[in-house]
Amino acid sequence: MADNKKALKVNKVTLDGGEATAYVAYRTNEVCSIYPITPSSPMAEFADQWSSQNVENIWGQVPLIAELQSEGGAAGTVHGALQTGALTTTFTASQGLMLMIPNMYKIAGELTPTVFHVAARSLAAQGLSIFGDHQDVMAVRQTGFAQLASASAQECHDMALVAQATTLKSRVPVVHFFDGFRTSHEVSKISLLADKHIRAMIDDELVYAHRDRALNPDRPKMRGTAQNPDTYFQSRETVNEYYINSIKVFEQSFNKLAELTGRHYQLFEYFGSKEADRVIVLMGSATETVKSTVEYLNKNNQNVGVVRVRLYRPFSTEHLFKVLPRTVDKIAVLDRTKEPGANGEPLYKDITTEMAQAYAGGKWDKMPLIIGGRYGLSSKEFTPAMVARVFQELNAKKPKNGFTIGVNDDRTHTSLDNIKPLDIESDDTIRALFYGLGADGTVGANKNSIKIIGGEDRFSAQGYFVYDSKKAGSMTTSHLRFGPDHIESPYLITSASFVACHQYNFIDHVDMLSRAKVGATFLLNSPHEKNIVWHKLPRNVQAQIIAKQLDFYVIDGAKVARSVGMGNRINTVMQTCFFALSGIMPKDEAIAKIKTAAEKSYAKKGQEIVKRNFAAIDQALAHLQRVEYPQDITSSYNPDPMAAFESAPEFVKRVTSRIILGQGDLIPVTELPDDGTYPTGTTKWEKRNIASDIPIWESDLCIQCGNCSIVCPHAAIRAKFYRKAELADAPDTFKSAHVSARGFPDLR
Amino acid sequence: MADNKKALKVNKVTLDGGEATAYVAYRTNEVCSIYPITPSSPMAEFADQWSSQNVENIWGQVPLIAELQSEGGAAGTVHGALQTGALTTTFTASQGLMLMIPNMYKIAGELTPTVFHVAARSLAAQGLSIFGDHQDVMAVRQTGFAQLASASAQECHDMALVAQATTLKSRVPVVHFFDGFRTSHEVSKISLLADKHIRAMIDDELVYAHRDRALNPDRPKMRGTAQNPDTYFQSRETVNEYYINSIKVFEQSFNKLAELTGRHYQLFEYFGSKEADRVIVLMGSATETVKSTVEYLNKNNQNVGVVRVRLYRPFSTEHLFKVLPRTVDKIAVLDRTKEPGANGEPLYKDITTEMAQAYAGGKWDKMPLIIGGRYGLSSKEFTPAMVARVFQELNAKKPKNGFTIGVNDDRTHTSLDNIKPLDIESDDTIRALFYGLGADGTVGANKNSIKIIGGEDRFSAQGYFVYDSKKAGSMTTSHLRFGPDHIESPYLITSASFVACHQYNFIDHVDMLSRAKVGATFLLNSPHEKNIVWHKLPRNVQAQIIAKQLDFYVIDGAKVARSVGMGNRINTVMQTCFFALSGIMPKDEAIAKIKTAAEKSYAKKGQEIVKRNFAAIDQALAHLQRVEYPQDITSSYNPDPMAAFESAPEFVKRVTSRIILGQGDLIPVTELPDDGTYPTGTTKWEKRNIASDIPIWESDLCIQCGNCSIVCPHAAIRAKFYRKAELADAPDTFKSAHVSARGFPDLR
Repeated sequence: MADNKKALKVNKVTLDGGEATAYVAYRTNEVCSIYPITPSSPMAEFADQWSSQNVENIWGQVPLIAELQSEGGAAGTVHGALQTGALTTTFTASQGLMLMIPNMYKIAGELTPTVFHVAARSLAAQGLSIFGDHQDVMAVRQTGFAQLASASAQECHDMALVAQATTLKSRVPVVHFFDGFRTSHEVSKISLLADKHIRAMIDDELVYAHRDRALNPDRPKMRGTAQNPDTYFQSRETVNEYYINSIKVFEQSFNKLAELTGRHYQLFEYFGSKEADRVIVLMGSATETVKSTVEYLNKNNQNVGVVRVRLYRPFSTEHLFKVLPRTVDKIAVLDRTKEPGANGEPLYKDITTEMAQAYAGGKWDKMPLIIGGRYGLSSKEFTPAMVARVFQELNAKKPKNGFTIGVNDDRTHTSLDNIKPLDIESDDTIRALFYGLGADGTVGANKNSIKIIGGEDRFSAQGYFVYDSKKAGSMTTSHLRFGPDHIESPYLITSASFVACHQYNFIDHVDMLSRAKVGATFLLNSPHEKNIVWHKLPRNVQAQIIAKQLDFYVIDGAKVARSVGMGNRINTVMQTCFFALSGIMPKDEAIAKIKTAAEKSYAKKGQEIVKRNFAAIDQALAHLQRVEYPQDITSSYNPDPMAAFESAPEFVKRVTSRIILGQGDLIPVTELPDDGTYPTGTTKWEKRNIASDIPIWESDLCIQCGNCSIVCPHAAIRAKFYRKAELADAPDTFKSAHVSARGFPDLR
Repeated sequence: MADNKKALKVNKVTLDGGEATAYVAYRTNEVCSIYPITPSSPMAEFADQWSSQNVENIWGQVPLIAELQSEGGAAGTVHGALQTGALTTTFTASQGLMLMIPNMYKIAGELTPTVFHVAARSLAAQGLSIFGDHQDVMAVRQTGFAQLASASAQECHDMALVAQATTLKSRVPVVHFFDGFRTSHEVSKISLLADKHIRAMIDDELVYAHRDRALNPDRPKMRGTAQNPDTYFQSRETVNEYYINSIKVFEQSFNKLAELTGRHYQLFEYFGSKEADRVIVLMGSATETVKSTVEYLNKNNQNVGVVRVRLYRPFSTEHLFKVLPRTVDKIAVLDRTKEPGANGEPLYKDITTEMAQAYAGGKWDKMPLIIGGRYGLSSKEFTPAMVARVFQELNAKKPKNGFTIGVNDDRTHTSLDNIKPLDIESDDTIRALFYGLGADGTVGANKNSIKIIGGEDRFSAQGYFVYDSKKAGSMTTSHLRFGPDHIESPYLITSASFVACHQYNFIDHVDMLSRAKVGATFLLNSPHEKNIVWHKLPRNVQAQIIAKQLDFYVIDGAKVARSVGMGNRINTVMQTCFFALSGIMPKDEAIAKIKTAAEKSYAKKGQEIVKRNFAAIDQALAHLQRVEYPQDITSSYNPDPMAAFESAPEFVKRVTSRIILGQGDLIPVTELPDDGTYPTGTTKWEKRNIASDIPIWESDLCIQCGNCSIVCPHAAIRAKFYRKAELADAPDTFKSAHVSARGFPDLR
């Protein structure tokens, strides 16, 4: 928040979708009823933190944060607090949102203004997943909540405000949603809403009206009655007008926001050719991918377009037809959800219904061919290559309906295959990839770099961080984009101009250079100097470096860090090298900025720490080495990652091993268990091999405190005791020592 | 259960949809995890009762009944018990089902066989309602459960078995649903499944297979893992085949059931003209109403049909097109649910999507015009007249889409109006209406009558009982149908051949004779003899009796009951009169049967009670009087039910009064609160006036125990004490007495 406040002056900040949302939600509410669930947790945590820091909302109050026992309780509290006249919000996802359904019907039925901010996430079915898709929000589409989608952090920020302003006026509650992780956790540079703009969007008269509807003894009324067959149906129809009206109110809010900020939104937004023959319809972050692919394809003599659904409920037929070109012959509707047993996914059916009615009613000349498909479940990548494949499918003789894209369904053959690589990104955009270890500081340093670069007016910036759910100790991959153009690439980098490996041992089994483009820079944190390192590399790494003519650098990050008294903290060293090599800004300027940032970050910890960081920065530059390499593969080192699984059970060889090796995306449907049932005892095959040092027991130094065996989570050293006689057949290398306590001469 | 067992021999029993379902569910499961919620409660209660009586399932075990703290817990227990390999079921409705959603995704995702039996009920929105519609089941259509609909008690019984058999084989869990109250509480005569048929439908090998999938240490496996973007999507696609396959398994189960019982079911069932130009598609009990109306209309030179959706999920396009006539020009899809903000209700969109795809794909020659409408929310009546109106709308120049039928929407004008009365029922069907007071024995006696009549091979029988949610002390209306033909009339009787008023004072304000057909029999429980009663009747009652030439009888039920020592219990007396008058069977035969039934019912209570009942039966016949009445209205008594509301607030006059007077169905949408907010303090306007005697305080008999004021819930006599002086201005009729306790000479 401190950062944001400062940033307010320049009006541009670099933050993620969750924070961008929470920023507005917090300022426009009095109660946040929470039960944090990934990936919505940061929103609840920010609200909690700001409240504890006495940060005020736009009316000068510090909102009350109530954490309940579950999302069921959080929803009940939202309902209760709203009935007292308090402006109330919540943040949730996945099964958490499911627990809110019983209350959502009541909140909507009673026409109560509120916004639920949802970092849309997969539902736990055959397995749980913390990652993003629309299964949860699609499962509440019948509750009577409006549903407003955001595709980026900027939109999260703006739509959070539009939703709040609109719900107060329309009295239809809103689910404001955006893709979990992809949007909630993607850091990007956005224009921050000024408090005066937030104030201008929220009409205090409507807040008073909400207060007046409160249940309290001063103005006694009864709400939540039992109704019988005589009146329930009619009472359920009283709300129709509010839904029709809310569509207009959303439009008014969009217009007002545009007046205030210059940012224009619509209920449905169309991008592409005005005479498109093929159109994709979808919502959420993937709309950006499709939009930029459409631009690329139209430059390459195609005639296509995309409809971004912003207001999913209430669904406005009128507004859809306002933007959809009359020329369209074929439509692909993409749903980021799955409803087993249904004759199509929800958005697909909405669009098909509309088109059929328009055609049957004479409002549309011909019935277009419409196909529906699923994509991106659980944050599965959805790339420009896949977009192109979908457009290609629309040109097929018999386009496939009910398809999937992004997986290999070798069982019911739903998937569109033969997806050809496609890089549509501008060369002006610097794309940098960093491979680090969970908790090694790589992600933190990268977030810092984004803020430094994003702080420059001339740059857009984006950062996305891939962890697996094992968190600490797993590999992290940071995907950073910077450039002069607005960045609309909510997918992983596959063609990087800069690749950094922060952990030397990854080189053996992580195929990171496949994501490097020709001529890219490769920075390796290596214990080996420039003259030695080449020969230590595995054959396939050498091959890729040569084939792609990479600009190859090494630095012994750990050594530099230790030399300036920073222990194992390599993040500042590696960050400096990135700035030195990436060319995003002149080296001197970059160094100055890193130093300023370091000063800001560490000043509180004392001048000594700042000095050490400055030294690290200077030493990093001094020790960064360019590697000259031959044009032939010289290494005979050819590690086989599958070797570790040689004696593993069949299932581990076929499935678990590929998940461990980072090739899980390639596992086809037939290889996975039908019902989420897995064999046990497979953790032992995951030799993560992430230690940079090996612990060695030195028997002559040992004081037999036993701490070594206690502190090591991997049980690298195990203490046992036994009689000397039992050592008779032990190998020579087996070390042992007398028990140092008295009275056990025979024990080792 | 005792009844059922006995009935097994004859294979025909008279029971309601809930019991018919629970009968099968109990016998084919090992665990019933329950949290009873209206209208599903009787199913859970039956299971609980049977278990306490050690009734066994088909494997000779007594199922375990676990009652949890909420439906959330019940669903968790279902999931847990299933994972131990136990065959497990539950019964629920409404928001109870909503609380099960989080677990439903997991149960389905893990391909776990189970059946949830749902007495479909409205969701609490602007108000709660315990009555029936499809809002709850439609809100879980995306969970991956199959959805199987029953339209009658017989179907409930059969589908409960089909669902259980199919889920074991297909591994797709099933929501088996039927209309709350309309089907769950409608008593009708059904063919009971023999245990050998139930055994034949359940394959023990599949039960073993379910056991083998259990999580237990003997066969260790892991289920419920966390999945990441690399594998979740593919894993979600592993189930496709199971859904495709389950459609076939449902068909196999239908076929097997047909072999065993001769009762044939299909995924979609079509009734009507094979060259129909107009077709209605819907599901649930209303399909019977549409089916019988279609038969009637086609006899009257129309060319219509109806598709009954039995298996809603998985939705089988192939089977829909197998039954839908190629000749259809126009389709109306009726949904018993509402999704505010959606562009149409779910079934409507399913059908529209299918037709559009068939047309665009060249499988269907023309795109039919399709309209969708809502009907029957919260057990709102849906009658043959409304069915005819929908078919009429399809012939309109511009048929209305998104319509409502059965309410007067004078606000957004969705409703189809000008519904013309239509009686399609055969004269062979005796339709009897009984107006009684909650807890006065009327409903019980009527259920007894249905069993007596239903016990005859030659009769079909149906009973439906309308209470309001105030239960005891409110009016009950019993709708009984008997006749030689199969009864498919799941709607209230509007053209009765027999009307009985069991509470004399109803005559003032309940317009019961509007539901009598010309020449019907009217039986009035009256304190007035045949010669006096005519002149005591209100003018409008006289007018209706004359206009419809009713056959009018009176009996002083209370007097007869008291005379044979049965106190206020008029039920046996009135039941006897019904049998004597209705002509459903010869009088002597009928009397013998009532006596047998009374003996059976009361034998346990001793021979004396049986004798009194016999006496009541005989005396009833002796005291039943036919009223000869003039052909002119002679009464000047013209009670105005609105008089009681003269000084009431505007809202009470406009809305509450009509609800109280039983005219709530006529209240239009504009008159009802938008958001379920009602004024307080309106109960006092509900003068129910239901006492047949007035308590009188007799001061000279009074022993001043005070019990009179304590026992009367209506505070008809209130005890106060005060000084004599305060009586100075009291009216002469104001009674008082000395306080009988010593030492208070001044107190009254």
